[in-house]
Amino acid sequence: MIIVVSEHASDAEVERLIGDVEARGVSVKAVQGEERRVFGLVGDVSEIDAEGLLRGGLVEKVMKVSAPYKLSGRSFHPEDTVVTAGGAGTDKAVVGDGAFLVAAGPCSVESEEQILKIAQDVKRSGAGLLRGGAFKPRSSPYSFQGLGLDGLELLKIASRKTGLGILTEIMSQEYLPDFERDVDVIQIGARNMQNFTLLREVGRLGKPVLLKRGPSSTIDEMLMAADYILMPGKAQVILCERGIRTFETATRNTLDVSAVPILKKRSHLPVMVDPSHGTGYWDLVEPMALAAVAAGADGLVIEVHDQPARALCDGQQSITPAVFDSLMRRVARIREALS
Amino acid sequence: MIIVVSEHASDAEVERLIGDVEARGVSVKAVQGEERRVFGLVGDVSEIDAEGLLRGGLVEKVMKVSAPYKLSGRSFHPEDTVVTAGGAGTDKAVVGDGAFLVAAGPCSVESEEQILKIAQDVKRSGAGLLRGGAFKPRSSPYSFQGLGLDGLELLKIASRKTGLGILTEIMSQEYLPDFERDVDVIQIGARNMQNFTLLREVGRLGKPVLLKRGPSSTIDEMLMAADYILMPGKAQVILCERGIRTFETATRNTLDVSAVPILKKRSHLPVMVDPSHGTGYWDLVEPMALAAVAAGADGLVIEVHDQPARALCDGQQSITPAVFDSLMRRVARIREALS
Amino acid sequence: MIIVVSEHASDAEVERLIGDVEARGVSVKAVQGEERRVFGLVGDVSEIDAEGLLRGGLVEKVMKVSAPYKLSGRSFHPEDTVVTAGGAGTDKAVVGDGAFLVAAGPCSVESEEQILKIAQDVKRSGAGLLRGGAFKPRSSPYSFQGLGLDGLELLKIASRKTGLGILTEIMSQEYLPDFERDVDVIQIGARNMQNFTLLREVGRLGKPVLLKRGPSSTIDEMLMAADYILMPGKAQVILCERGIRTFETATRNTLDVSAVPILKKRSHLPVMVDPSHGTGYWDLVEPMALAAVAAGADGLVIEVHDQPARALCDGQQSITPAVFDSLMRRVARIREALS
Amino acid sequence: MIIVVSEHASDAEVERLIGDVEARGVSVKAVQGEERRVFGLVGDVSEIDAEGLLRGGLVEKVMKVSAPYKLSGRSFHPEDTVVTAGGAGTDKAVVGDGAFLVAAGPCSVESEEQILKIAQDVKRSGAGLLRGGAFKPRSSPYSFQGLGLDGLELLKIASRKTGLGILTEIMSQEYLPDFERDVDVIQIGARNMQNFTLLREVGRLGKPVLLKRGPSSTIDEMLMAADYILMPGKAQVILCERGIRTFETATRNTLDVSAVPILKKRSHLPVMVDPSHGTGYWDLVEPMALAAVAAGADGLVIEVHDQPARALCDGQQSITPAVFDSLMRRVARIREALS
Repeated sequence: MIIVVSEHASDAEVERLIGDVEARGVSVKAVQGEERRVFGLVGDVSEIDAEGLLRGGLVEKVMKVSAPYKLSGRSFHPEDTVVTAGGAGTDKAVVGDGAFLVAAGPCSVESEEQILKIAQDVKRSGAGLLRGGAFKPRSSPYSFQGLGLDGLELLKIASRKTGLGILTEIMSQEYLPDFERDVDVIQIGARNMQNFTLLREVGRLGKPVLLKRGPSSTIDEMLMAADYILMPGKAQVILCERGIRTFETATRNTLDVSAVPILKKRSHLPVMVDPSHGTGYWDLVEPMALAAVAAGADGLVIEVHDQPARALCDGQQSITPAVFDSLMRRVARIREALS
Repeated sequence: MIIVVSEHASDAEVERLIGDVEARGVSVKAVQGEERRVFGLVGDVSEIDAEGLLRGGLVEKVMKVSAPYKLSGRSFHPEDTVVTAGGAGTDKAVVGDGAFLVAAGPCSVESEEQILKIAQDVKRSGAGLLRGGAFKPRSSPYSFQGLGLDGLELLKIASRKTGLGILTEIMSQEYLPDFERDVDVIQIGARNMQNFTLLREVGRLGKPVLLKRGPSSTIDEMLMAADYILMPGKAQVILCERGIRTFETATRNTLDVSAVPILKKRSHLPVMVDPSHGTGYWDLVEPMALAAVAAGADGLVIEVHDQPARALCDGQQSITPAVFDSLMRRVARIREALS
Repeated sequence: MIIVVSEHASDAEVERLIGDVEARGVSVKAVQGEERRVFGLVGDVSEIDAEGLLRGGLVEKVMKVSAPYKLSGRSFHPEDTVVTAGGAGTDKAVVGDGAFLVAAGPCSVESEEQILKIAQDVKRSGAGLLRGGAFKPRSSPYSFQGLGLDGLELLKIASRKTGLGILTEIMSQEYLPDFERDVDVIQIGARNMQNFTLLREVGRLGKPVLLKRGPSSTIDEMLMAADYILMPGKAQVILCERGIRTFETATRNTLDVSAVPILKKRSHLPVMVDPSHGTGYWDLVEPMALAAVAAGADGLVIEVHDQPARALCDGQQSITPAVFDSLMRRVARIREALS
Repeated sequence: MIIVVSEHASDAEVERLIGDVEARGVSVKAVQGEERRVFGLVGDVSEIDAEGLLRGGLVEKVMKVSAPYKLSGRSFHPEDTVVTAGGAGTDKAVVGDGAFLVAAGPCSVESEEQILKIAQDVKRSGAGLLRGGAFKPRSSPYSFQGLGLDGLELLKIASRKTGLGILTEIMSQEYLPDFERDVDVIQIGARNMQNFTLLREVGRLGKPVLLKRGPSSTIDEMLMAADYILMPGKAQVILCERGIRTFETATRNTLDVSAVPILKKRSHLPVMVDPSHGTGYWDLVEPMALAAVAAGADGLVIEVHDQPARALCDGQQSITPAVFDSLMRRVARIREALS
């Protein structure tokens, strides 16, 4: 950690500051400069609160030398991590280090007929996981909130009949046992990316977790959130870019495609992209799916609905099974072109 | 709800669309224009998914005529709501409709001595609630996470000895009974503003709730989150502006002072402002506290620490009891000038 | 244009409002609803100031039915526009409707040797235009500001010797005659996207113009800026996405790849993408160039420098000729995969 | 300047890097650490391109120790600067170091009668400058663009009859002689904050300049823009916060009130605030004007129109002379409360 002392700090104040820091077992090295007093803090600085140091104008700038995340970082684990989901009764879904995975399905589970039909369609086109919301986080309490555990039962039926593993979002600790038992990949939604209680609890299960980026979260915050899940040492994490909130209103979110190569560089975890939520419009799903693949994504999460106009949520951003099928062919061609 | 039909839609498609909408018991009125087909949807449109309608390019634009929130809206409740916290054993803390309330205390509870001393100091200067974190949401899993229930015990001691009610953040449903029993105002933190499970659970208690604005939440989303809490009909809600995430790096967040008059106009709920988290720097706390008051805030939430440089979190944004005392005098003068 | 009248407006006020609007030759149609008074304004509403109407709370919401741009819009000109640059003495550079164009070269022109060597290299790899800054807009007045007209002379030498047309940025009206005479595609930089005086002046020349998106400009504002250039009826415009400003600090800007399919849908103009400025890091240039192409871009603008570490500006985001050559091969494979 | 070398850099690469830097007359001091190689660059680093250093992954992080601006910085000029405008024939308008100045008037000059009436009204209420647009930067080429030089003539008439100095925006170099002769404070609008050609040209006149913050400009970029104006050594600069672009749509911009105390700390220049453009809604002008004053602003720029509903631009954000008069009284009370 490097600190720049304020030009207004007295020598006595600086001495006291150095004493405080050294008292925590960290050594302090001066960088001789002309205009400002700059120090390097060397040793185990994990106990030093960078922001606390800035208090009072005594320290003017702080630069952390090390990354703020560990378990999810490449320094910690240089090789690509491969996440494998599914097992007895369902197909194996593998993502990372060259393995490409597509999760597809409706925004929310509506009926047995609906989920089964879509599951069969997306499987035929090459999807490796069935996505579908049973518990739906909705900005408005007056919107459809999902079928809850009933929805999970319907997903299980579709999974049993197609072999596709289930990817679905958890919103509350109380359903942890259900998710542990029935879900192949547990999704932490964007709004819960910093619900640290939930991250920790999910991390205690021995399950793959898909962690969606919060709409106003930086890439580093996302990797720190991944560390929360990884800390108990049991879970596997897949990162998912799904758009950030910007001033642009032409899209629901701005899909940050550049997050893909950055995450791949900083982290060993697989990176999937959700162009459906990331754009909010069905006709942007294909071009942005192709863009994500071209940028190096390890997989895609895509909303597919057989009757988007009648979907109970997010119909606007769902594509039909036919469009999905065509998209999958084009994804394959892009992947081939990259190889 | 007003919809503008795409110029590419065929007459047959438009007819089917109108049929679909009318089938949900909503009548459709054409607005004769020259360039585009525009319709007004009249009746109970709560079942109509605006975004779903946009699916497929058939509908190009949708404008909702009514606000997306209800219980927290002024139309629903024209008079200012007054929230009263505290009771047997603690001082009454009142906010709204002219009653001004300041909650002050350390970012996190560190020790009995610390919390008691600060509580006494801030009470002497006029604070009406003691704020202090027992459970701390931290971006990094490697940062201090709070003392948990032990911290809550220390808050109770300080409360008993000073009479100040307790304002502290809940991060998990599992502590609902503890918070219900011991906490006077339950805080929903910014990162949990859209943790809908928690909003609903907290709303089932008969307690005042301070709802902090999410760093990337719009004002309307904040009011919808308030509706989640208000729906069970038992809780009282105080809204709290605490800064939004923007491109500017000179502050931790950009405190959206204009949210104060807008929230006061759109909602009947009291509005408090947190200039400590809203700026991230102790020397901005006073000017921004005064700005918030001048803009019409009903109260303030302020971090006060007797030794900010040694604070276990957020020292950088905490002011000392002496600075707090001076700030309170200036706040009083501004309030007088406004009256 | 649709307006929603405030619930607090009196009948007399609404009548006066309608009278005001009708006095401008626009007819007013009521949309019968239950909660609110909603009106459609039909006819030539170009004289109606939507924002003015919102004044005073009498009108609460306004929705414009038509797009705010015209000349650059697809309604106005359904077929893709093809822009052709270069002529006597230089190779023809064509972009749009299937024609793909890459402009490459250094951030700024530094010496004859430098610009000539890079021009030869990028031409060999398939670039169709030589880009290079003679006049450099720099945030800091203490940074290198470009060689000015001398830089333009060096570009001309490199152009003559390689046949590549010149793409370079204009920063001031005073050099319009020089740019008209010597430059094949005139660039309006991101910071000048709303320098309306410059837009208008450049539009009076009969030259292709590359219009870069402002870092905080919406897609619609970009198209209105294009309309400024197109109004005199002489210029051809190429749109260029180059990243928007967001809260994310891992990149210099957030490249909005989704702007490509949106611009292609809303406008008939060719769309190029600048992954160098759009990310700010050389190692993100290739993945984001491929992403842009996969999303449907008509061309790329790429910074290439033979000694990026010694570049006088933006070395961090420049790739070497060797990396550029490899990138061009991969772009070609992606384009083939899409066809 | 502090640099952190990538963990992947070889010793030979680091040596070459150090050689390169030292060749520019800068000495390099190692900061001994455990995990990373960190160096301090000491001496005149103005020739070192921080971003260039980051090229190639050899350098991973750079921290600039000194501020990127000089002439506008407090280190350069510790005392508050006082700007005085107006002279023969007009009242003196003074701002800074305790002197408070309000500029008021219509968004755009529409007629002699209009501008004169408003000028008389705002003068009576205590305004010290008459603001009014003759040249109007409009996002749409189809909107009213101002009366141009005719508008300037009308401003001169109103100035002569009231004694109020003129504040109006320049959009093009070609009118520099007119502005030099007739305008008391020349405004650089938000969209032109990084029109460096215009900044430099305006800086060559011996006139006060009001520099508005660009909607996506950081505070540091604003101060670098001020340096452009100050470099020729003749102009006086007033800084003006007028809102930044964020995701929030309830306001036209998000007025960054915290910019006021930050600018006052970093710079010696006076700081004014424009709550009209900063919010976009007339009913937010007063609360935000009061907030700005409470936060320490040296002045205000406010749109006043006698018939806001009929204003040719921005009527939505203009207040009437009566509201302005009441606002001025409340501003005076707040200023008194702060003293």
